[in-house]
Amino acid sequence: MKIAIAQLNPTIGDLPTNAQKILEAAQQAVAAGARLLLTPELSLCGYPPRDLLLNPSFVVAMGMTLQQLAKELPPNLAVLVGTVSPNLQASTTGGKSLFNSIALLEDGKVKQVFHKRLLPTYDVFDENRYFEPGLQANYFTLDNIDIGVTICEDLWNDEEFLGKRSYAVNPIADLAILRVDVIVNLSASPYSVGKQQYREAMLKHSAVRFQQPMIYANQVGGNDDLIFDGRSFALNRQGEVMCRARGFATDLVIVELDETQRDLQLSSVAPVYESENEEIWQALVLGVQDYARKCHFSQVVLGLSGGIDSALVAAIAAAALGKENVLGVLMPSPYSSSHSVSDALALGENLGIQTTILKIGELMQGFDHTLADLFAGTEFGIAEENIQSRIRGNLLMAIANKFGYLLLSTGNKSEMAVGYCTLYGDMNGGLAVIADVPKTRVYSLCEWLNRHSEIIPQNILTKAPSAELKPGQVDQDSLPSYEILDDILQRLIHNHQSAAQIVTAGHDPVIVDRVIHMVARAEFKRRQAPPGLKITDRAFGTGWRMPIASNWAAIKNTYQTKNIPTPTLT
Amino acid sequence: MKIAIAQLNPTIGDLPTNAQKILEAAQQAVAAGARLLLTPELSLCGYPPRDLLLNPSFVVAMGMTLQQLAKELPPNLAVLVGTVSPNLQASTTGGKSLFNSIALLEDGKVKQVFHKRLLPTYDVFDENRYFEPGLQANYFTLDNIDIGVTICEDLWNDEEFLGKRSYAVNPIADLAILRVDVIVNLSASPYSVGKQQYREAMLKHSAVRFQQPMIYANQVGGNDDLIFDGRSFALNRQGEVMCRARGFATDLVIVELDETQRDLQLSSVAPVYESENEEIWQALVLGVQDYARKCHFSQVVLGLSGGIDSALVAAIAAAALGKENVLGVLMPSPYSSSHSVSDALALGENLGIQTTILKIGELMQGFDHTLADLFAGTEFGIAEENIQSRIRGNLLMAIANKFGYLLLSTGNKSEMAVGYCTLYGDMNGGLAVIADVPKTRVYSLCEWLNRHSEIIPQNILTKAPSAELKPGQVDQDSLPSYEILDDILQRLIHNHQSAAQIVTAGHDPVIVDRVIHMVARAEFKRRQAPPGLKITDRAFGTGWRMPIASNWAAIKNTYQTKNIPTPTLT
Repeated sequence: MKIAIAQLNPTIGDLPTNAQKILEAAQQAVAAGARLLLTPELSLCGYPPRDLLLNPSFVVAMGMTLQQLAKELPPNLAVLVGTVSPNLQASTTGGKSLFNSIALLEDGKVKQVFHKRLLPTYDVFDENRYFEPGLQANYFTLDNIDIGVTICEDLWNDEEFLGKRSYAVNPIADLAILRVDVIVNLSASPYSVGKQQYREAMLKHSAVRFQQPMIYANQVGGNDDLIFDGRSFALNRQGEVMCRARGFATDLVIVELDETQRDLQLSSVAPVYESENEEIWQALVLGVQDYARKCHFSQVVLGLSGGIDSALVAAIAAAALGKENVLGVLMPSPYSSSHSVSDALALGENLGIQTTILKIGELMQGFDHTLADLFAGTEFGIAEENIQSRIRGNLLMAIANKFGYLLLSTGNKSEMAVGYCTLYGDMNGGLAVIADVPKTRVYSLCEWLNRHSEIIPQNILTKAPSAELKPGQVDQDSLPSYEILDDILQRLIHNHQSAAQIVTAGHDPVIVDRVIHMVARAEFKRRQAPPGLKITDRAFGTGWRMPIASNWAAIKNTYQTKNIPTPTLT
Repeated sequence: MKIAIAQLNPTIGDLPTNAQKILEAAQQAVAAGARLLLTPELSLCGYPPRDLLLNPSFVVAMGMTLQQLAKELPPNLAVLVGTVSPNLQASTTGGKSLFNSIALLEDGKVKQVFHKRLLPTYDVFDENRYFEPGLQANYFTLDNIDIGVTICEDLWNDEEFLGKRSYAVNPIADLAILRVDVIVNLSASPYSVGKQQYREAMLKHSAVRFQQPMIYANQVGGNDDLIFDGRSFALNRQGEVMCRARGFATDLVIVELDETQRDLQLSSVAPVYESENEEIWQALVLGVQDYARKCHFSQVVLGLSGGIDSALVAAIAAAALGKENVLGVLMPSPYSSSHSVSDALALGENLGIQTTILKIGELMQGFDHTLADLFAGTEFGIAEENIQSRIRGNLLMAIANKFGYLLLSTGNKSEMAVGYCTLYGDMNGGLAVIADVPKTRVYSLCEWLNRHSEIIPQNILTKAPSAELKPGQVDQDSLPSYEILDDILQRLIHNHQSAAQIVTAGHDPVIVDRVIHMVARAEFKRRQAPPGLKITDRAFGTGWRMPIASNWAAIKNTYQTKNIPTPTLT
């Protein structure tokens, strides 16, 4: 039996277009001789639909689209479509009014509906907000083959592999007891660095442990801050990769189940990426491309400071949308170094994008003049530095508004973490392209980009990073070196380490304390940041939910200097 | 038995200060002869702690603080304290690693710990992200009185009153079967208009239905976008209000349980508010006061346009922080009407706040000049209008940065809904004071404020609202009348109605369609808005989770014109 995986890129809420994509994939699958087609989780509405699900007319429209799609699909093909379905007992027995479901469409009808059992509620996931968990193992029989059906998180509770149990049940174990022939999983699993290796290792463990061939179908494409990487794959009973779809692109692949051996045969296996940098690059390019396309922008504008962050974002934008659709704006001030303009122009030249220069000196004087009475007797400081950044932000937004361009913001994760950025200034934009990329990774991405020839001018890579908001300023006047800062931030933000733990790892206690305070104080800036493309397992986006008016950072050291006993709650 | 309710105002994460507040309340309770003290849900860390709970050192510190507090409390007083506690079986049986708990402290120790059973995951609530639900009915016996313990949401599943069941179990029903003498509920229930009447009616229903006296202890104070209104209360077995604490202020009240009748006696009952406007006013004043205080600001700045929105915000700020701590900045342009300055100055006079005037004409020319080549041949439009708003935003932030003031933004909910506001311009601020107040309510609040004497100058109330970003502009050039707009928005946003339903209610289909599209298109602006004080059951804050890159609004009418069948999923 040939099974096709449609690795689709839906637009959230665009039900007819998404249904059309499923229909086209079905026609291709039939042409390739497939008997069954898999599509990703919630393939009909796109993942994540978020609060659109609170809108009853949206849910009704999804049901109508599903019925219509069932009628239009080609004969002799069974199709698994991701959709929501009503929990008809919700108001009498309690529980959410929807299930996150997979519908089996065949012979012009919805034949069966399966419900997701494990609902994630960590990081960016809010599934308990909308869905009731399914209570039973899901499978169906097609031409005498028993096919177990799971949805995304249903896979993620192998306590042997993960070292702990996150949910009471393991849907894979339940299906193994039923001795199905193959387990399929329809996913919408967002990208983060290294996630694919983790997925494949985890599924390999489950395949071997439960002696079950597995087929994993993932969504692809950017939806706001989330990038879905695709890379659908299939494992035989020994956990070997028999098939892998492309990364960061739509695909349709066929995997064959040998009906005698009841195991999967080797088919096309897309290669893994040569480096993390290549993988991140692909992710960011897709993220920009899809955000622009799905928001109906074809052109983008960004400020080019001559620094490395805006250089990387310009390169990503050119790759995503075509160099002719990228406008770089140079906005030198009297504090800008001469190389800031020449480096930015060299970059623009290398990329082949349009550039324009708008000097901001006159506007800076205008603000100084307007505020002269009010600021009389005060010294040049943060207020004046921020004015410059906000003049640039205003100019960029004026261009975006005038010509209908999408403004890309260029701040990196290290800056966003410690607040080394200006709200309503350089933070301006519809999309923060590298907001989840630490500064050290920005450097290594640019070096990778230059592996064949110079794209990012060498001087941008080697000069000391500077905001150039006052004469002679460099980032390291205000911040520890980025190697040290990024290591502290990784421990603090990703690993949830305490100050004591970070100090034990070898960092200076004074710097650690300062960084912790800077991170806490920057919360109000992050709350107003544009969506930032997520490439790590802990981004400052929809999965970062911190109070602003909080005093924890200020008092936390009083606890950390004490000898901390284990709490003895009974 | 005298039972004290400490209606506390914690700062999120400030464990020692919050513990100190509980200790002081305990001393007062003892002085008043109480045997038991109730504090709100999570009184030790403040509600909502959000992702601070993902930080193990925070959880450990909370446990330490609780142990220490137990030792310091006065003798002969039992105290219920809201805290988190570890789910020690989580990694072996599956489940979240914490419970949302109440600790019973007595005799220097933590005597018992009770876990919240119903965990809300709607609107602003994310409790499944952190907590595992408790599985058993909670009660303890004190001097022969059986006291049932519930936490916030545990009350909110009376299917008779609510018309549906939201959870499988009703903790009140479980306690009634056990025939406890009184049920206490420790809450952190955010304010919305009319919520208190709803709470009291619901609890009255449960009290009568289950023949149980009830004591409800609520948190008070502003935490970011959420305002907790306090108004703790107690009901006797007949559901009559025996006690009510103040609204929007800390309080300590005593309610007496007659040990023979096993029912609550009448004690002090704070009056209900005379009008919704008074209630909303109190909420907004507290919200500004607490956000400023908890973020360590004593002074605020805002732009005074001469319009009604900024007038209301200035009045709220003066009431919250003192007139001497409010600076209103007038920033007239050549397009500003003469009354915009005179009205704003009159308002400043009435309120007794400081005002200053910064003309922006020169800066507008500076931007025109800087952009002249790039914009050559284009017409004056939205881009130029936004430049003005962003010049003002830059000036206000410069003042805020220079003097350490908190900038308040002044946009109302109707504007935020349809995007009639400038991102990085008038949307700038640390707190959006009236972001959840529809324009029609802004008018009625100002009329209420003027009930004794003129505070908001009459001309501000009567003139046509205008952004004054081009000559002769009024809001109704771009928008339907606010009466119509606000009714459509109420149906769309609060009631989740479809376009067809809104049209059936009597609205013009063309206007409805336009409003729906404006709301969808403004999502990117709302994503970057400051926290806005929540006063309704559906605010554009932490409880509003919409995709930006979505196509639902664009295609939704194709479904609504069809005859919609009920989905027939099996």
